[in-house]
Amino acid sequence: MALPMTQSKIWTAALVVIGDEILSGRTQDRNITQVAAWLNVQGIRLVEVRVVPDVEDAIIEAVDTLRARNDYLFTTGGIGPTHDDITVDAIARALGVGVVHHPDAVDILTRYYETRGGVTETRLRMARVPEGADLIPNRMSGAPGIRIGNIFIMAGVPAITAGMLDALTGELEGGDPLVSVTLGAWAAESEVADLLRTVERDHPGCAIGSYPFFREGRVGANFVTRSTELDRAQACSASIAAGLAARGYESVEGGI
Amino acid sequence: MALPMTQSKIWTAALVVIGDEILSGRTQDRNITQVAAWLNVQGIRLVEVRVVPDVEDAIIEAVDTLRARNDYLFTTGGIGPTHDDITVDAIARALGVGVVHHPDAVDILTRYYETRGGVTETRLRMARVPEGADLIPNRMSGAPGIRIGNIFIMAGVPAITAGMLDALTGELEGGDPLVSVTLGAWAAESEVADLLRTVERDHPGCAIGSYPFFREGRVGANFVTRSTELDRAQACSASIAAGLAARGYESVEGGI
Repeated sequence: MALPMTQSKIWTAALVVIGDEILSGRTQDRNITQVAAWLNVQGIRLVEVRVVPDVEDAIIEAVDTLRARNDYLFTTGGIGPTHDDITVDAIARALGVGVVHHPDAVDILTRYYETRGGVTETRLRMARVPEGADLIPNRMSGAPGIRIGNIFIMAGVPAITAGMLDALTGELEGGDPLVSVTLGAWAAESEVADLLRTVERDHPGCAIGSYPFFREGRVGANFVTRSTELDRAQACSASIAAGLAARGYESVEGGI
Repeated sequence: MALPMTQSKIWTAALVVIGDEILSGRTQDRNITQVAAWLNVQGIRLVEVRVVPDVEDAIIEAVDTLRARNDYLFTTGGIGPTHDDITVDAIARALGVGVVHHPDAVDILTRYYETRGGVTETRLRMARVPEGADLIPNRMSGAPGIRIGNIFIMAGVPAITAGMLDALTGELEGGDPLVSVTLGAWAAESEVADLLRTVERDHPGCAIGSYPFFREGRVGANFVTRSTELDRAQACSASIAAGLAARGYESVEGGI
């Protein structure tokens, strides 16, 4: 797409999803979508995602590349207490720092497990952080997330990650959020491709995405206009609607 | 995880998911899971996934890196007829070849659109391939997938990609598929982490993944043992079950 024009700096983020369970097909990832949607509200664009296995070198390569070229880097997965949870060690190695028990995390876990069988050495593994890190609160299950530099280390369980994102809301500097306006029509995208191309060219600052579907035996598509300015996006979407009408297609605001 | 030992070559694949709609959070990706599961049946391991925007340089970087270090590279998305479909051009540029209309694809599209309003220049965009490419059949909607060298270019719509994978079944050389045996228990993983670590160490060729959950107000976890040999995986899983029983936890074969 033509990236929307903007007067202000575009803030970017990348996400590294860590876990054999995603790469084996066992688990359907839910974190990409929720991190993407949350970032957009913060005015930060998710520009790349990598899914890597529970292998230290793979984590380090992804973290090193993506933290250097983005304002923020998020990770999900691999911060539990078991042997396959190696995210903290990998990121510490990527940063060239040691791993320490964060005193606040030790307190949090000690309190959390007071009524749940008591804290153990294994449970205190979840207090380990790269040296110099701060904590991200986790209201759901005790073990906190971790923030170090521009890296945000979060849980693999989507509901826990949701709570961590909630705790970070409004904390990160961002730019203008992208807004989107969606229009649906029972039109084959191959019949309107030229229209979309022309309308996008005539509306600087807007990018149009075309997402076809097959339903009830018919083809249709949703046309999503994205921009940092709502009035530009609306004007662009109105042009698509007018062009569709001129070809005899009714369009549905908000999409089909 | 400790990668399972195996006597034979391990065949690997990477996947590049192309599309602004995934990175904006608008669309929940379904292709990672289905490609991963299909690859595993072919005896090929998905070792890395990247999600990139509809931006030529981003696609080229991912394709170039991943095709060089894996036996196979798959892409999904960006092969429709609209202006935001730039996958074919990006991959041709990555390979240093031109883009041509594949004669068989032209035939397929001409026949497909015979009863659907006729073929047009826009629709023939879907016959464009990197020079030297072969086609991957698409029984669902006419426009074929594309195979060139070790790269397999597939649709973004999951149902269409499913048909393309079906057409490729048995066509790709692979090694021993990974099998997995799952055991569930209402145990906090922090109470059994030491057990899992010990059992994995005692069972070479097996990797144990631990996947916690919160349900009905209780914590539990599924323990997935992966190996290229079913009897090894079963023996390893049986050791986990015995260890859990010794600690007073019932376990459920197949997972909870």
